Amino acid sequence: MARIVQKFGGTSVANTDRIKAVALRVKAEVDSGNQVAVVLSAMSGETNKLVEYVTSISKLYDAREYDAIVATGEQVTIGLLAIALQDLGVSARSWLGWQVPIHTDGVHGKARIERVETDEMNVRLELGEVCVVAGFQGIGPDNRITTLGRGGSDTSAVALAAALNADRCDIYTDVDGVYTTDPRITPKARKLEKISYEEMLEMASVGAKVLQTRSVELAMKQKVRVQVRSSYNDEPGTLVVDEDEIVEQELVSGIAYSRDEAKITLVAVPDQPGSAAAIFGPLADNGINVDMIVQNISQDNHATDMTFTLPIADLDRAVATLEGNRDVLQYRELRSDKDVTKLSVIGVGMRSHAGVAQRMFTALADKGINIQVISTSEIKVSVLIAEEYTELAVRALHTAYGLDSD
Amino acid sequence: MARIVQKFGGTSVANTDRIKAVALRVKAEVDSGNQVAVVLSAMSGETNKLVEYVTSISKLYDAREYDAIVATGEQVTIGLLAIALQDLGVSARSWLGWQVPIHTDGVHGKARIERVETDEMNVRLELGEVCVVAGFQGIGPDNRITTLGRGGSDTSAVALAAALNADRCDIYTDVDGVYTTDPRITPKARKLEKISYEEMLEMASVGAKVLQTRSVELAMKQKVRVQVRSSYNDEPGTLVVDEDEIVEQELVSGIAYSRDEAKITLVAVPDQPGSAAAIFGPLADNGINVDMIVQNISQDNHATDMTFTLPIADLDRAVATLEGNRDVLQYRELRSDKDVTKLSVIGVGMRSHAGVAQRMFTALADKGINIQVISTSEIKVSVLIAEEYTELAVRALHTAYGLDSD
Repeated sequence: MARIVQKFGGTSVANTDRIKAVALRVKAEVDSGNQVAVVLSAMSGETNKLVEYVTSISKLYDAREYDAIVATGEQVTIGLLAIALQDLGVSARSWLGWQVPIHTDGVHGKARIERVETDEMNVRLELGEVCVVAGFQGIGPDNRITTLGRGGSDTSAVALAAALNADRCDIYTDVDGVYTTDPRITPKARKLEKISYEEMLEMASVGAKVLQTRSVELAMKQKVRVQVRSSYNDEPGTLVVDEDEIVEQELVSGIAYSRDEAKITLVAVPDQPGSAAAIFGPLADNGINVDMIVQNISQDNHATDMTFTLPIADLDRAVATLEGNRDVLQYRELRSDKDVTKLSVIGVGMRSHAGVAQRMFTALADKGINIQVISTSEIKVSVLIAEEYTELAVRALHTAYGLDSD
Repeated sequence: MARIVQKFGGTSVANTDRIKAVALRVKAEVDSGNQVAVVLSAMSGETNKLVEYVTSISKLYDAREYDAIVATGEQVTIGLLAIALQDLGVSARSWLGWQVPIHTDGVHGKARIERVETDEMNVRLELGEVCVVAGFQGIGPDNRITTLGRGGSDTSAVALAAALNADRCDIYTDVDGVYTTDPRITPKARKLEKISYEEMLEMASVGAKVLQTRSVELAMKQKVRVQVRSSYNDEPGTLVVDEDEIVEQELVSGIAYSRDEAKITLVAVPDQPGSAAAIFGPLADNGINVDMIVQNISQDNHATDMTFTLPIADLDRAVATLEGNRDVLQYRELRSDKDVTKLSVIGVGMRSHAGVAQRMFTALADKGINIQVISTSEIKVSVLIAEEYTELAVRALHTAYGLDSD
């Protein structure tokens, strides 16, 4: 007998028929003798509708009221699933964030889970009752509903799995696992049987939109075995586990890409101490997250070019901020570019192998693809390229690292 | 300075524009120096949509899950109104049933309010903050959300007004007060300035659909001054108050009618002890509420005819129950009729005046309207007539009791 947490996203509970299908899947797990807690998102589209209500009333809304409003979506789906399970003869009840309770900090709109109380739920799981828990929500120190930010239900599921000492946390989604790269770009992409937390974290943060980044961080910290699997079939998915559990570690696990990046270059910035701080300080103050940064060596005129990337959604605000500080920053010209892609090669195997980056540069050069910016970490090499080369580059790298399926 | 509870129904908060209009009305009350708590319903149509979700999953649903699901409608509107008020510069926050808390009994789906805690709300009202409270919901002894039954927001408002010692409870609705009869039937109907709790209770229970019956019972018990008024204008509405507050009490306050009745006659039931119990016992066991009952005197064959009325929605179940017991009841024939109307003349003045019923019988006879069943109470005379005479009868009685406007 095992204890399983199952999480279903918005498309899996999009209407009452889908919810009945989820109930059958939960019942199958119960019938095989397991204890089951289920975490649900809102019906797809519902949270957006609620957010529109809020913004149509006020652009400057109170985040506490926003949370109470948007948290209703999960309240509906968990009640409906509990009823659907009971209708199948499975004992079940719904749990709201404040009923569990799932305690969070007080940062409404993007709260962090601090503690999950499970005394009562443990008793009910032992009795064979299915606990259907609202994802995305908790209760803050002010006794008001908090939400975890978009995609937060993954984090709810992992936190609950950790608190319940679950054997596994199954994340049901519309893909059937984690792939070596986006299968829409190359049919040679392979589903991974296992991937390490560290690699998954890089995959998530560079745009393989399978799991919310914070949920992976939490799983890594709490050692929760996560399985990404399909809502639509019974195939095993991809296990996200500790590096030690992966016996035959490949050099590279996957090729990820993100088109949500933009590039800014400040031409001829004075090459003097404090320049970088003067540029990035005001951006940070405005909540803009800068990613890759490259500073060239100084030229004759004691000036340098500073290039960096940031989320495309922040580009306009970043340009406005930099232009507002032009007198201080003394750059000659500001160039921005939205048509870029960040391409990443990810693998814990890099730690012990040289030449991984070189293989990337060669493969891209062979296809005539120019590299604009390079950044590396312990288990990742990322480059910025022109967006139009995205698919070509992904396919070239997938082949170069020996990831293609037979 | 006064303390006011305002309640707005589903059509008043049907969309975000309407909610902004409600915010302006609340602000006007705040600007005139009053402390204000607001009770809201869900957006009109929303509760029906949620109920449809539930019934499409299971006809035999768990009332606890039903409650958690349908309670989300008010959670959305109160959050939105709080944001709309803040946007107008009015300090406000939303309160869910479990946050107040509004304690109810454990009868999910039609819970009764037992106690409203107001310590924190009193502090906030004194500070000038508007408290926006979810109607229709509370929290049960099992720490789960309960709902009060359809129309329960009126009861929430009255219970809150009582607990807060409010000076008045204003129920905003789509009519501008309580009328002597349905203005759609006669333009001579007059808006009443005041009506007693007892009369309002009879008006509510016989089909003048202005206030939920339980809310009037509660107002009477707790001596809450209730005002029924329009969401669409600033005219004063109708005050529902203690009889003693009404100086010039009229003989009759109103003429009410209900088309939601059906009639059953059992022909030639044995006239012997225990017959009535044998008939009405099984109906009560099936949750069917019988209203008027008439038994004729015995005939030659020691048999009698038994006639009674019941809600039209229960007719089929009642007929099935009675036919199932035919062997025991030994009636010769069962006749049922849906085309009947219950017509009531209501007024506390009847207590001290004779001849009120006689005036009704005469007025109906003058128009050639046959009376099928009669029942009387201390402040009400009701008769059952054929449905096709409804309008004619209402107009005749309205004139006969001197209620016509000039």
